[in-house]
This record gives sequence, C-alpha cells and structure tokens, in this order.
Amino acid sequence: MAKDPEVAEAGSFSAKDYQDPPPAPLFDAEELTKWSFYRALIAEFIATLLFLYITVLTVIGYKSQIDGNSDPCGGVGILGIAWAFGGMIFVLVYCTAGGHINPAVTFGLFLARKVSLIRAVMYMVAQCLGAICGVGLVKAFQKSLYTRYNGGANVLADGYSTGTGLGAEIIGTFVLVYTVFSATDPKRSARDSHVPVLAPLPIGFAVFMVHLATIPITGTGINPARSFGAAVIYNNAKAWDDQWIFLGWTLHWCSHCSLLPPVHLESRSCKGSGVIQEQPG
Amino acid sequence: MAKDPEVAEAGSFSAKDYQDPPPAPLFDAEELTKWSFYRALIAEFIATLLFLYITVLTVIGYKSQIDGNSDPCGGVGILGIAWAFGGMIFVLVYCTAGGHINPAVTFGLFLARKVSLIRAVMYMVAQCLGAICGVGLVKAFQKSLYTRYNGGANVLADGYSTGTGLGAEIIGTFVLVYTVFSATDPKRSARDSHVPVLAPLPIGFAVFMVHLATIPITGTGINPARSFGAAVIYNNAKAWDDQWIFLGWTLHWCSHCSLLPPVHLESRSCKGSGVIQEQPG
Amino acid sequence: MAKDPEVAEAGSFSAKDYQDPPPAPLFDAEELTKWSFYRALIAEFIATLLFLYITVLTVIGYKSQIDGNSDPCGGVGILGIAWAFGGMIFVLVYCTAGGHINPAVTFGLFLARKVSLIRAVMYMVAQCLGAICGVGLVKAFQKSLYTRYNGGANVLADGYSTGTGLGAEIIGTFVLVYTVFSATDPKRSARDSHVPVLAPLPIGFAVFMVHLATIPITGTGINPARSFGAAVIYNNAKAWDDQWIFLGWTLHWCSHCSLLPPVHLESRSCKGSGVIQEQPG
Amino acid sequence: MAKDPEVAEAGSFSAKDYQDPPPAPLFDAEELTKWSFYRALIAEFIATLLFLYITVLTVIGYKSQIDGNSDPCGGVGILGIAWAFGGMIFVLVYCTAGGHINPAVTFGLFLARKVSLIRAVMYMVAQCLGAICGVGLVKAFQKSLYTRYNGGANVLADGYSTGTGLGAEIIGTFVLVYTVFSATDPKRSARDSHVPVLAPLPIGFAVFMVHLATIPITGTGINPARSFGAAVIYNNAKAWDDQWIFLGWTLHWCSHCSLLPPVHLESRSCKGSGVIQEQPG
Repeated sequence: MAKDPEVAEAGSFSAKDYQDPPPAPLFDAEELTKWSFYRALIAEFIATLLFLYITVLTVIGYKSQIDGNSDPCGGVGILGIAWAFGGMIFVLVYCTAGGHINPAVTFGLFLARKVSLIRAVMYMVAQCLGAICGVGLVKAFQKSLYTRYNGGANVLADGYSTGTGLGAEIIGTFVLVYTVFSATDPKRSARDSHVPVLAPLPIGFAVFMVHLATIPITGTGINPARSFGAAVIYNNAKAWDDQWIFLGWTLHWCSHCSLLPPVHLESRSCKGSGVIQEQPG
Repeated sequence: MAKDPEVAEAGSFSAKDYQDPPPAPLFDAEELTKWSFYRALIAEFIATLLFLYITVLTVIGYKSQIDGNSDPCGGVGILGIAWAFGGMIFVLVYCTAGGHINPAVTFGLFLARKVSLIRAVMYMVAQCLGAICGVGLVKAFQKSLYTRYNGGANVLADGYSTGTGLGAEIIGTFVLVYTVFSATDPKRSARDSHVPVLAPLPIGFAVFMVHLATIPITGTGINPARSFGAAVIYNNAKAWDDQWIFLGWTLHWCSHCSLLPPVHLESRSCKGSGVIQEQPG
Repeated sequence: MAKDPEVAEAGSFSAKDYQDPPPAPLFDAEELTKWSFYRALIAEFIATLLFLYITVLTVIGYKSQIDGNSDPCGGVGILGIAWAFGGMIFVLVYCTAGGHINPAVTFGLFLARKVSLIRAVMYMVAQCLGAICGVGLVKAFQKSLYTRYNGGANVLADGYSTGTGLGAEIIGTFVLVYTVFSATDPKRSARDSHVPVLAPLPIGFAVFMVHLATIPITGTGINPARSFGAAVIYNNAKAWDDQWIFLGWTLHWCSHCSLLPPVHLESRSCKGSGVIQEQPG
Repeated sequence: MAKDPEVAEAGSFSAKDYQDPPPAPLFDAEELTKWSFYRALIAEFIATLLFLYITVLTVIGYKSQIDGNSDPCGGVGILGIAWAFGGMIFVLVYCTAGGHINPAVTFGLFLARKVSLIRAVMYMVAQCLGAICGVGLVKAFQKSLYTRYNGGANVLADGYSTGTGLGAEIIGTFVLVYTVFSATDPKRSARDSHVPVLAPLPIGFAVFMVHLATIPITGTGINPARSFGAAVIYNNAKAWDDQWIFLGWTLHWCSHCSLLPPVHLESRSCKGSGVIQEQPG
C-alpha cells in the first residue's frame, strides 16, 4: 500500500488513489522457485475437481429424478442446476482467495498481462486435470446413471443451430469475464480494500445468470475445463465447445482493449484514463 | 473527502458527517469534453444490452420448455425468471460500479439533480439502443422461438384491468427507486465507505422481489428500456408500459419531495434535515 | 469511537472493546419534538405497506396460477413465496437503515429497553396501519382474485392442531428475534463497524428460512402486522395468530434474559441494554 | 492487532501481515472457570436445536405435500430443502458469531488444535443433545406426519451402493471443511478484518451446494449431529452415517496437513495453528 510519489502527477484529471501494477512478465523463472506457485496449482486442481464433482452430480441427479417419474416435480430443475454452478464458483473463489477455476478466465488474465505465460499454461493444465478427475469421481460413484445420462456433457439442444450455440457461448463468456475484470480492477481495490472478500459473490452470480439463460440451448460451456473434462471421461467427440469459447475470448479482448471492462473506472490495461466519480479539485 | 468547514454549522440537530454535493447543473458543457462521460455511455449501452439479452433468453427458454411438455417441471419457472432479472441487475450494477441500466432510475436521479440534463438524456438514449440490440441478438439467435413466444414483450395478463397493471407498475417502480435512493444517499456513504460495493445486492433483490410479485400481472415493466426494446424488436404496439411508468415516477417524485426515501436518513434533496440515529451532543 | 478508560478495567474475562448504552427511558418527551421521530414512523408505515403489498400479491398470484392449471408448475411455489417474504425484509431493513417493520421486533426491542414505550407503541400503530393499507391496495387492484384466494390470510392447514400451530409460531418468532438481537448487539458493532450495512442480509434469510419450514403449517404469522392486516381487510376472525406470537415473545424474553443472544459474545442486554451505536458525546 | 516484531523476519517468501496464535492446549482447566465457555455450550445447543427443527420440518412438509398430490408442484422441492440447510447454517453461524453447529467441524478444528480437547468434547455433546431436542420438537408437533415420512432420517436412495454413499459423504464433508478452514484462516483475518462477519455466507453456500448434489443419493449427512438426532428420535439403526464421516475427516486431515486449505495464502496450521481471533493480553 506504499504510495508511489509519481502517482499524484500521472493522472490527467485527478490524483489517482491506486497504483498500476507492472504487467506480468511472459516468463518469470523466479516464480518457479516459490512454494506458493505450486500451492496455487494444487488449489486450481482441487477447486476444479470439486466444482466438476458437485455440478455434474447435480445434473445427473436431476436427470435421474425426472426419468424415474416417481416425483416429476421434485428435482432441482434448471434453476437448481444453475444455482449449483454459480454457488460453487462463489464458494471456491472465496476458498481459494481468488482462484481462477476456469481456463477462459486464466487466458483472459494472461492476455491482460496479469499472470505470466508459464503460470497461465500450468493453471490451465491443472484445471483440465482437476476437471477430468472430478467427472471421473462421479463416474466411479455411479457408473450406470452416469452413462445413461450422457455424463453431464454439453450438447446443443434440438432446434438450435451451431451458430446460435456459438453466439450464446460467446456472450455468456463475455458476461463472466466482464465481471471478473471488473471485480479485480486495481482502481476498485484501492478504494474498497475488502473487495477480494466480496468479489466472489458477483462472480458467482454472473455464472448463475448465464446458466439460467443458456442451459436450455447448449448446457452452458463457458468453462472450457468443464466441457473438456466431461467430454474426456464420457469418451466422446463433444469437446467442440472449447473452440468457440476461445473465439469468444478473442472478441472479448478486442472490445476490452478498445475500452470496456470496468467502464466507469479507468480502463487501465489499454492505457486509457479517468476515475469513477470525477473529483473536482 | 475534504471536509467543508461550513458543514459543522449547517446541521440543526448535530454535526453532519457527510457532505451534500451541490446539485448537478442542467447543462454542463465541460462534461462533454471528458472521456469518462463517453465511457459511461458505452457502459450503459453494454450493460442494458447484456441485461436484455440474458433475461429475454431466459423468458423464451422457459416458454419453450413448458410448451414442449417433454419435462413440464424442468423449466426455470417464474421464480427463475425473477432471479434472472434481479441477479443480472446485481451483477451489472456491480460491474459498472453504479450504472443505472434503467431509464426510470436515470430520470429519477435527474429529478433529484444528481445528474445533469444532458447526461440523463444521453444515458436514456444509450439504454434504449442497448435494449434494442440485446433483444435483437436474442431474435437473431433463435428467430422461430422468438416469434412463437411473443418476443418476451410485456403484456397484461388475462383477467387484469389496465388500472391494475398501471397500479402494479407504479408501486413496483416505487420499490426499486426507493432502494436506489436509499443506497446512494450521501449520508449513508459517509458512514459506510464500502456501500458502493454493497449497494448492488439490495438493488438486485428489490428487482427480484418486484418481478416475483408482478410477473403474473403485467410481466413487470419497471424498466422502460426493457419494455421498449422488446416492443421495438417484436414490432408491435405494446410500448404502452412506458407511459404509466412515468406516471409512477411523477407520483414517486411527489412523495419523495415531501419526505420519503431514506426516511431514517435526512431527506437531503428536498432540504429536509436530520441524521439517522440522533446523536445527543 | 472514543475509548472510555474504564472499559479496560470492567471486563472480568478480557478487555471490552465496546460500550453499553444506557437503557432507553420509558417515556421520553423530548423525542416527540424531533422530526426524525415522525420520519421514522412514516418509514415504518411505508415499509410495512410495501412488505404486505408485494408478499400478498405473490401469494395470490401463486394461488391463481395453480388454480388456472394452464401451467401447473409455472407458479413461484412455496419456495418463491418464502423468498418474497425474506427478500422484502432484506430490502426494506436495508432501505430504512434498520426499520423494524414487525411489531414483534418492536416489542422485543422495547422489552430490551432499546426503544422507549411511546416509540414502541407508535411504531406498532404505524406498522398495523401500513399493513392494512398494503393489503387494501392488493384488494383494490384485483378484487375477484383476492376474495377467491382468501385474501392471503393465515390459516391453520388441515391435519394440524392448534397446539402445533402455536408451537411453530413460537419457535419461528424466536429464530427471527434471535437473529435481530444478534445483529444489533453493541459488542458486535464495536468490532465490525460495518454491521449496520450487513445486518439486513441474515435477518432477511432468517425470515426466508422460517417461511420455508412453516408455510405448510400455518402460512407463517411471525409478523403480527402481516396477520393483522390480512385479517382486517379480509374481514374475518382469523387474527388468532397474534396471541400466541406474544406468547412466543414471552418465552423468548425469559430465555434471552438468562443468557442467550449473541452467545459467543458477552450478553449484556439484561442488566444493561440500549441502542446500537451510542456515542458518548 | 499489536504487531509482533518477529513477524517480519519469519516469512521465507514475504513479510507476514498476520500472527499465528499458539496451538490450543489439550486440557485447559482455566477455560472451565469462564462463563463464556458455558455460554458457548448453550449456543451450540440452541443453534443445533433450531437447525434440526427448521430443516426436518421443511423435509417433512415437502414429503407431505408431494404425497397429498393436491398440488404436485407446490412443494419446496429438493432446491427448497437445500436452501433450508444452507440458509440456516448461514443464519446460525452469523447469530452465534462463529458457532460450529456440526460435530465434524468441531472435530476438525480440534485436530487443527484450534480448540482444546475438553471444549471439543463438550461442544459435540451439546450439538448431539440439541439435535435430539430439535427433532423431538418436530415429532411432538406433528407425530403422524413425522412417522409416516421416516422422521427426516438419512437413508441411502435405491440404486446406490454403500460405497457411493460413503464417497459422496466424504467429499461433501471435505467441501464444507475446506470452506470453514479457509474462512477462519488467521492470514485472511489479518488482511480483511471484517471476515468474521462475512464468513457465514460462503459457509452457508457450501452447505447449500453439497445438499443440492447429494440429497438424491444419501439425503446428505455431512452433519453427524443431524443424522444422529434424526436416527435417535426415529429410533432406528440408521446412524451409520457417522462412521464414514469421520473417515472423511481423516482423509481431510491428511490432505490438509500436507498443504491444502486457503491455498493461495500461506498454510500454517500444520506447524502452528490456533484460534480465529486471539487476543494477546
């Protein structure tokens, strides 16, 4: 929290009350020597495992119930599934004190130069391994139900074209990333020092909302690790999701760079400027 | 946060611990020269677009499911739709660090002289354009479903008179605006500096509550941009909602001026006085 | 936040970091001369009105839908009704910066000597009037539905004895009051200065939980104003709820005085007691 | 909050901004002389009683409704039951300012040496007694329904093996304990001094999530007191749950000790450990 003397001079409109961190280097050999780096990897692995385990179990439990027909309305419904995804992200982002859990988020933070290349790649590997193990656990626990109900893999619902699925995923990913960038903006942190604690809630809600809207279309694949893990374990060619998510990312990045995320704040990463509520002095 | 020396003298009951901002000017030429003004416009546009996109998609996905009848209980239900509206407002108000997203909110804040006339008009234009684009995206993605299910436009349900719809919209808008004024009151901010971070949650819940109660009546049109965008894209004469929302606003404003919103706080904008919990000294 | 030098000596276990406010006087003539007193009354009136309006509208809308049978699963369900009650309390306690909205809460805070007798009586009158107006509004808007569906009045469900209903109401009221006392404990405030902002959320959730559990039994009458208003407007002898709620209160008070609320903190309200944030002057 | 001068030197990676409390002694005679110890016991008793009462009532009310068939979709559903468990934990952890309410949590905090042996044993006794009384209250209120619907006891659903139930309980318990340890980590407290207030929300959500996923399998017995109380009152040999929960605990502890909980922070509880808010005096 040490104040940089240059900060006061830098702002064109007003004194800045935050400090821009320097961009993360592409390769940072030093970080490989730190225990905290490996602990973060383990956290990503465990969190993605738990995320996939709980959510795929909810999806399968729901399908099993509407199939059994003993109580057609007793299942958790799409609303319950959306809660499972959003709520787990809230809990796990809180537990890991800011873990990514989602390769799309890691990739975006890498593009914004907030994590180094090596860290981004290792995180994604840990996430994909965790996702595979999480779905594997579900399959181990209840093999017959798992196979009968498609293993919780994402598929395009009948009546929707590939283009619709693609569009839905692009905008869904955009909503999530918009929230993550907004929550982790350095300007916001400077003012509200408790944001790291509060950020998981809106991020979890963003995931909840996107699932509510797009489960009926594609099952929602805004988390590539979730689609990937489910596809690998179900042993099927359904990992198509991933490609267009990264398309979504490219789109996001373009718009981000021109001006977007925390739009009321100063969009730092593209060297714009300006503060939330102008201060006259 | 500089303390104005006059503040301590102004209070009739006790020393004020907040500063009343001067009323925003009607026309502020200077603000047009600032990049932050245009960034805020873009934020309103994007946020309203995402809001309409997610919520109309949820409404249509729900109608599609109860129509398909394959799983009569699997849809998200009215509860899910209400969550979509309330949750998106929570996420987007958080993301934009206090965006309005709703012309009724902008209009109210203009009446309270918290934004200038030019800013209010430009915000409303951006919101309406965003709403049209958001609904347009939904239509582009799934044209057949969109047309079959009325394009998510608000209509008065059978068995309710126009007067009932009008009344429901007036009170619904009042609940939302009451919460917004309460959350943004300068007295509250002075004491609890983290309110800007926390305010989105009660605002989102207020939207959730109003939808829970009035979806069965009118579909809930407390956001004129939402009704307008849906009506424009569906190309139909259903934009009636807007008129009575502004009636609702007029009513609100009268009651507000006499005494209301943050009632336990000092109702500043009408030159009342007093602080939340009287301090004896 | 000035520290009283005596504080450090007084604690038998550890240094106290809070200050017990003096008990509120039974009659405080001075408070009748303050504008803030009347503003608080208006706030109670408006908040109870909005509370009853939104919740009774949700109850009737739900009954109307399951009756219509066009979409048996589309209604908000008991879960949605419970959310309406809990969520509105969250929003309104936030908006009024700590309003009571519930005569049982006012009565409890009076017993704990946190409000004066005159304030307690006036609050209860304002709450009951607000409740009557709120239910009246619903009736005005949709008279036929209102009458057909019992006006949202609380009744004991078939298969439950009066004793069961009584017991359920007593414990339900206890859960609510336990949360309110815990949230407003002066010890908690001393440690966590932002509690006044955060308190509405657990209070709202407590209301949500109690409704989830007891709607199938009595419709949940833990708010006497809610039962009273619905009974008055429906013009029927169903205000029985009130009596046992106050029984519940008596029970609560005994247990409270011996030791309970914020039990992990030091319980002072039985010899001391007083107001949330007293400042020494 | 006094700063230990040694702290800055101790960290191998960076300056520490927190203080590790010393491990709690196994037997602490002094603590038996403190009133706060007995108040905490009473709090555990009351909180577990209220927890069981509300949740078992919700479960039975739900079963009663889908049985009655008068309104097959009106019941709260599994989603509502999951909310009841998660929401009550949120409310009660908030009310007791950090109560355990769950023997598994107490046992875990004892293993981490954050509570003494005597305190752990007494807490567990209080929790089990509270659970028995809570379920007893439900039985007293509605004996016929209670017996007809299995007394809310946990049973393995048809089609699942014992191994599956065991696995589901182990991972479910792990998710809960992971969140609790993360929320109470001393490093987190040092940084975000308001965590004690915010922690109940993610803990409650973790309980909500686990129930959403595993209610269809075992009814979710991650709280041994809940399984025990329901089994005792229902007078049946179904307390099997407990054994494997403690297996789950053993597993947890191994992983915890090697590295886990708040993984992005520095994990100290395996050499150090201690209590949430230790006060030096």
